[in-house]
Amino acid sequence: MPSPILVLNGPNLNLLGTREPGHYGRETLADLANLCAASARELGLETEFRQTNHEGELIDWIHGARGRCAGILINPGAWTHTSVAIRDALVACELPVIEVHLSNVYKREPFRHLSFVSAVAVGVICGLGSQGYRAALAHFQQLLQEVAA
Amino acid sequence: MPSPILVLNGPNLNLLGTREPGHYGRETLADLANLCAASARELGLETEFRQTNHEGELIDWIHGARGRCAGILINPGAWTHTSVAIRDALVACELPVIEVHLSNVYKREPFRHLSFVSAVAVGVICGLGSQGYRAALAHFQQLLQEVAA
Amino acid sequence: MPSPILVLNGPNLNLLGTREPGHYGRETLADLANLCAASARELGLETEFRQTNHEGELIDWIHGARGRCAGILINPGAWTHTSVAIRDALVACELPVIEVHLSNVYKREPFRHLSFVSAVAVGVICGLGSQGYRAALAHFQQLLQEVAA
Amino acid sequence: MPSPILVLNGPNLNLLGTREPGHYGRETLADLANLCAASARELGLETEFRQTNHEGELIDWIHGARGRCAGILINPGAWTHTSVAIRDALVACELPVIEVHLSNVYKREPFRHLSFVSAVAVGVICGLGSQGYRAALAHFQQLLQEVAA
Amino acid sequence: MPSPILVLNGPNLNLLGTREPGHYGRETLADLANLCAASARELGLETEFRQTNHEGELIDWIHGARGRCAGILINPGAWTHTSVAIRDALVACELPVIEVHLSNVYKREPFRHLSFVSAVAVGVICGLGSQGYRAALAHFQQLLQEVAA
Amino acid sequence: MPSPILVLNGPNLNLLGTREPGHYGRETLADLANLCAASARELGLETEFRQTNHEGELIDWIHGARGRCAGILINPGAWTHTSVAIRDALVACELPVIEVHLSNVYKREPFRHLSFVSAVAVGVICGLGSQGYRAALAHFQQLLQEVAA
Amino acid sequence: MPSPILVLNGPNLNLLGTREPGHYGRETLADLANLCAASARELGLETEFRQTNHEGELIDWIHGARGRCAGILINPGAWTHTSVAIRDALVACELPVIEVHLSNVYKREPFRHLSFVSAVAVGVICGLGSQGYRAALAHFQQLLQEVAA
Amino acid sequence: MPSPILVLNGPNLNLLGTREPGHYGRETLADLANLCAASARELGLETEFRQTNHEGELIDWIHGARGRCAGILINPGAWTHTSVAIRDALVACELPVIEVHLSNVYKREPFRHLSFVSAVAVGVICGLGSQGYRAALAHFQQLLQEVAA
Amino acid sequence: MPSPILVLNGPNLNLLGTREPGHYGRETLADLANLCAASARELGLETEFRQTNHEGELIDWIHGARGRCAGILINPGAWTHTSVAIRDALVACELPVIEVHLSNVYKREPFRHLSFVSAVAVGVICGLGSQGYRAALAHFQQLLQEVAA
Amino acid sequence: MPSPILVLNGPNLNLLGTREPGHYGRETLADLANLCAASARELGLETEFRQTNHEGELIDWIHGARGRCAGILINPGAWTHTSVAIRDALVACELPVIEVHLSNVYKREPFRHLSFVSAVAVGVICGLGSQGYRAALAHFQQLLQEVAA
Amino acid sequence: MPSPILVLNGPNLNLLGTREPGHYGRETLADLANLCAASARELGLETEFRQTNHEGELIDWIHGARGRCAGILINPGAWTHTSVAIRDALVACELPVIEVHLSNVYKREPFRHLSFVSAVAVGVICGLGSQGYRAALAHFQQLLQEVAA
Amino acid sequence: MPSPILVLNGPNLNLLGTREPGHYGRETLADLANLCAASARELGLETEFRQTNHEGELIDWIHGARGRCAGILINPGAWTHTSVAIRDALVACELPVIEVHLSNVYKREPFRHLSFVSAVAVGVICGLGSQGYRAALAHFQQLLQEVAA
Repeated sequence: MPSPILVLNGPNLNLLGTREPGHYGRETLADLANLCAASARELGLETEFRQTNHEGELIDWIHGARGRCAGILINPGAWTHTSVAIRDALVACELPVIEVHLSNVYKREPFRHLSFVSAVAVGVICGLGSQGYRAALAHFQQLLQEVAA
Repeated sequence: MPSPILVLNGPNLNLLGTREPGHYGRETLADLANLCAASARELGLETEFRQTNHEGELIDWIHGARGRCAGILINPGAWTHTSVAIRDALVACELPVIEVHLSNVYKREPFRHLSFVSAVAVGVICGLGSQGYRAALAHFQQLLQEVAA
Repeated sequence: MPSPILVLNGPNLNLLGTREPGHYGRETLADLANLCAASARELGLETEFRQTNHEGELIDWIHGARGRCAGILINPGAWTHTSVAIRDALVACELPVIEVHLSNVYKREPFRHLSFVSAVAVGVICGLGSQGYRAALAHFQQLLQEVAA
Repeated sequence: MPSPILVLNGPNLNLLGTREPGHYGRETLADLANLCAASARELGLETEFRQTNHEGELIDWIHGARGRCAGILINPGAWTHTSVAIRDALVACELPVIEVHLSNVYKREPFRHLSFVSAVAVGVICGLGSQGYRAALAHFQQLLQEVAA
Repeated sequence: MPSPILVLNGPNLNLLGTREPGHYGRETLADLANLCAASARELGLETEFRQTNHEGELIDWIHGARGRCAGILINPGAWTHTSVAIRDALVACELPVIEVHLSNVYKREPFRHLSFVSAVAVGVICGLGSQGYRAALAHFQQLLQEVAA
Repeated sequence: MPSPILVLNGPNLNLLGTREPGHYGRETLADLANLCAASARELGLETEFRQTNHEGELIDWIHGARGRCAGILINPGAWTHTSVAIRDALVACELPVIEVHLSNVYKREPFRHLSFVSAVAVGVICGLGSQGYRAALAHFQQLLQEVAA
Repeated sequence: MPSPILVLNGPNLNLLGTREPGHYGRETLADLANLCAASARELGLETEFRQTNHEGELIDWIHGARGRCAGILINPGAWTHTSVAIRDALVACELPVIEVHLSNVYKREPFRHLSFVSAVAVGVICGLGSQGYRAALAHFQQLLQEVAA
Repeated sequence: MPSPILVLNGPNLNLLGTREPGHYGRETLADLANLCAASARELGLETEFRQTNHEGELIDWIHGARGRCAGILINPGAWTHTSVAIRDALVACELPVIEVHLSNVYKREPFRHLSFVSAVAVGVICGLGSQGYRAALAHFQQLLQEVAA
Repeated sequence: MPSPILVLNGPNLNLLGTREPGHYGRETLADLANLCAASARELGLETEFRQTNHEGELIDWIHGARGRCAGILINPGAWTHTSVAIRDALVACELPVIEVHLSNVYKREPFRHLSFVSAVAVGVICGLGSQGYRAALAHFQQLLQEVAA
Repeated sequence: MPSPILVLNGPNLNLLGTREPGHYGRETLADLANLCAASARELGLETEFRQTNHEGELIDWIHGARGRCAGILINPGAWTHTSVAIRDALVACELPVIEVHLSNVYKREPFRHLSFVSAVAVGVICGLGSQGYRAALAHFQQLLQEVAA
Repeated sequence: MPSPILVLNGPNLNLLGTREPGHYGRETLADLANLCAASARELGLETEFRQTNHEGELIDWIHGARGRCAGILINPGAWTHTSVAIRDALVACELPVIEVHLSNVYKREPFRHLSFVSAVAVGVICGLGSQGYRAALAHFQQLLQEVAA
Repeated sequence: MPSPILVLNGPNLNLLGTREPGHYGRETLADLANLCAASARELGLETEFRQTNHEGELIDWIHGARGRCAGILINPGAWTHTSVAIRDALVACELPVIEVHLSNVYKREPFRHLSFVSAVAVGVICGLGSQGYRAALAHFQQLLQEVAA
């Protein structure tokens, strides 16, 4: 069985679909999980989908992915802009990382324009809503094929 | 029964009355809770009073207030200056928020002059000690009366 | 007779109730003066209520409070962000000072986030409308009781 | 009789024609007043022309224009760069404002490149000497015609 | 026939596949054009694919898309960080825009972390190589379906 | 025949009247050209009116004005904020320059508050719409009369 | 009779001797005036000594010195750091200016390290208490002798 | 029995020895714990050694040290640069604190050059690997002897 | 025949000898071309000498040098300070680059102290007038000899 | 015999009278030494006058003044803006210090507006030429009398 | 005989024990030298201990250590914050360097928070008083053993 | 005999050829001196070549060149970025100055991008190794010929 892609969602994303639809759309977190699962099936990937409001739990999950998962798709939410600890955890897990944001952070407050994660990720997708997750999964598939080749 | 006001206290406030009395006074957290309860009774309000040193727990409590409480009085302590996640949770809960600090943060280090919460709050009170909590509760009473009117 | 609390209002506040109601509400300056007088009576305090568009006049009034008044409640308006002279006058008068703003300045332009007054005040209240004045008077009452005790 | 345009001149402009002719030209304030009056007559406008070295007086004049004048042409002089109170007064008077400087402030010290007034004005004219006043009056004429239309 | 998606590539991208493969991979611009055409066919979209080293030509092309194309996929290359004129052209064309970068700009020099385009785009994709173009086209397909619905 | 005033318009101004009317009004570039021609006739001036989206072409036109034209009225559009080359060309042509913007740039994004042109111009007019062009031409007339005198 | 030296004192200096003796010493403003008068007599100079809390009054006094006084000794107090209008008035009066501060402003808050006056003064003296005034008068004597020579 | 020294390790330090050996060396957290225990025995000290990825847990541990431990040796990891809450907890516990980093943070990214902890610690050691812990313990021994003396 | 050195000159340099002789001297661009040709002959080098006011043309020329020329001597003029695209083109052409300025840019405005080109060049020469070009050619000769050796 | 005042002069002051007379006047260092000696005699003070271009020598001299001199008059020249070591030496010598500059540093480059010495001095005098030294000596006399009293 | 460790002390450290005991303790430089010698004997190391107030002498000593010493323990004092020359000398000597400060520089002025040395050192110790020297020597011992192994 | 060109080398340049050859090449200081002597002979110039690690000595040498030398070629090394005293000495000597760096400082740390010398030099050469010295001498020859002409 192939190693899964770990899909991590940061604080407040549990409220998805109910909170600021102007920024985040009307899909719920469950919709997003289903979309990821469906996209993964199509792409021949396995995914694990999680959300937490506790930074420590997110770090523990990242550590747990080391040597067990094939990559990490992370939407760090508000921690994008404030957490060096998550950046360090991602570096330490030695896996390819793709950073995804549902909304276009560059249309929001200036403090959302800085990401501690971007410089340690393979790439960044923002503003495409749930399609950003799908595009990230498709890119993981390609990365895995390149590695396998 | 009226919806309660959620009174939230951030990190280190459990040490109140024992820590840096020059900044925070000699009242303990229990004194503060009692004062809030007494003030609420006088004002015909219900309050829930909580404190945590875990950011994730505070975010969970804010989420839990959505649609259940009438407002949030928050003393975010040190997270005032560093937590975008709490700001986002407060916006997401769609309740009126009043930010309260026991000490006058403008007499302290410059990094305490920035608040991520203020811009999403109704108002801010600092430097009035426990009376700041009482004043915030009085303002919630007025807000609720205006809504009811 | 007890020493009065001097309630000082800075530039443009004479237009209160007619100007930018989104920021300042619909109460007029006369309403605010009446509210202060009523609150003071309830609290057993005396107040003097003044407004000026002339910085020099405000400074003269602050000087005049020295040794005659028990405290200064000041809404410095736009001078909050630009007047070192008022800050120095407040320090020189050697009285407790509470800074009050009707609107939440942290929702407005960045140049309104700096206050020359806050660091020399006991505390700051903003965004609570005229209730901010009432809360400040209540705090003066408590301060006076502590001194008297 | 049509509502007048209030033409306001800030500090030191009373010395016009005698002070730093390299920056401000040789016309006196009286010449400028005459030019405004003549231009206004040509354009079918009424003007009131004033100068003060007292910020509070300027604010009082702006307040007095509310509901009585059709617009304000202001050369705030040095207060351009330092007075939030004048900015707030101009917003409060709810009239169209045009900011005029005799000299080209962008050729002078960097602290003269910031204007607190520009963002609340219809437009800004600098460096055209007394012709800047004439151009501003011509624009007020057009604005009034549009409103009348 | 459906309106095409205009795919625009900025300066130096004609050297793709030959220049700094560490940043941009080994695919040539022709490969990228072919991939876009193939992806478009799969998605039922039409594309026009262009590259220029002349800012004025890029602006003219953007203007030409107004009312004729369904969206703009733009990789502005170095102009991302310096051209307000391209930003203004994109706003003026009143079409959805997706910004794509082959490399992860956040791993490069700090001056590449600022984009004048991001704030006027629907979203941004970087670091996914040519797959970023494919993901952008897939998102345009979805946007068009939403509009059609 | 008198030397003409060269009226130069920068990028995206060809879309005038169709683009962001909130900022730029509804007049088209052709309307603006006609207004300039009409104003020039009234003032006894000759004008040449041009627009380009190519910075190099604008520089060539400025060079061509040297020793042939009497002045340059320039609306540099987005290049105002980014082009040192245009600034240098204007200095090199040794003609009086007036900078004009249709909209009030001080109401827009902060990066539009910096102009590389202003410090080398006689003066600046912004926010007066097409009347700004007329006012600039009137000022050129006066400058030419002074020179002739 | 020789032209007098105008000795100007800014806001709050009327409280001298009673306010923050740590910074300003115990001499009153009257003591300072007497010391200036005595020093002037010794040096064969005439002085006029004034204080105001009204910026406009200070500007008027500076204007009044033009062509009548031989120099201006100014302690601008808090306006040192905020008033461009006073700077401009000093330039306009075309007299030698010496800036004096009783306390050493470099031991105080950073915002007191900037002076709008220093760059237009002959020199600056701070931290020498009332002796700073005496030293400034002595320097004026020397300047007048040089001019006379 | 003597009061113990609390040895606290922040986020990601559980991965020690497996993560970025260029920065942190090859010792594991267990090795580090053993080294601390051995060093403590030699020095006649007691230690408690802990690690957590949860900021709230670290704060709780610091609170628990109050009045029970003799000092805190803390390697705050990534929280060094972002956590005001830990700083406040350390101040509140009223114990001597030594900050230790295994790697030399000054050779890494600029955001690692700021520490919220350093200003409230007795001292800082970085870049000496596990020997930094030993040196800190030796300093605690000396501090305790001075107190005892 | 040896590969030539491409000598590139940016915007406004066509006006050389006529423009701001204080900064750039009295030599014309033709004089400079002749001097380069003569210096090249002496040094046994071939040169191609070009100037453009169009950034895109300069980029195309740099691309054309790839694999055909032995080095690029570039005086980017005003683009030095604003063009990331030229920097990227220079990197992409994989040739040694020497940056030359006729005037000493460090005596001019601060925005001329930043160069996007310097960090990707072998070296920089400024302030030596046309001799800077000669010195750069001499250095290319030495570089070519080292490569040949 | 009274303890002397040490008069210290920093780098390049040996060229006084020959260097940039616009800034520093025409007096030589010897003239200045004579003036100090004469002033000291008048005031009943002893002075030692020295100059060096070697920072280490200046520090040694400052150390040598400890417990032997009554005060230090220092013109640190260019070291004013760059030497923390001299600041520390002045603090360490535990004597009153007066900082003197011949020219008005606030009329010169911005890097001359920062002084590492001012915050540890009694006061600062600049722009009064050699009279600044005399005024400083007079202030030392007064300080010594106060101490003696 | 083993290569010695060079122990270098910068400006003002000769006054140790007499200067600002709050920052630096009461030990003299001779005490510190003795402590280093004793610690070295215990550790089987040789040390050379020097102090200078002359930057050039310190650089010469660093140069002299090249190929002769085994490492450099440096307390650069005030030069920490200002001397690029010492940093370059340390790099040039190609020896391991440990930076030591007696006091905790992070409790002092902000300009003491920047070190030019830290980024080229193995590690940094501050705030441990003379024990910091001992800890650095112990670390050199370990480094030498690793090299020897 | 003609006046010599003084060739000055700052700190650490005595280690040339042994230190960081990636930045400075393999030539020693003696090689560089020989190259300068040889180049000078070819050009009909006299040179004096010196190096020091003592800033005061460099300043003394610059002073000694006044009225005796024809120009100064200076490689200030690390002092480039930190010494205002050397800048002032160069201005005071009233000779043409050329600043030379062996390496391209723009490829190194940001603090090496600021030079206190450049603004007072005729020109700057960096990154050309020892050829930079030769080019500077050639430029002095031309300057001397122009003066002689």
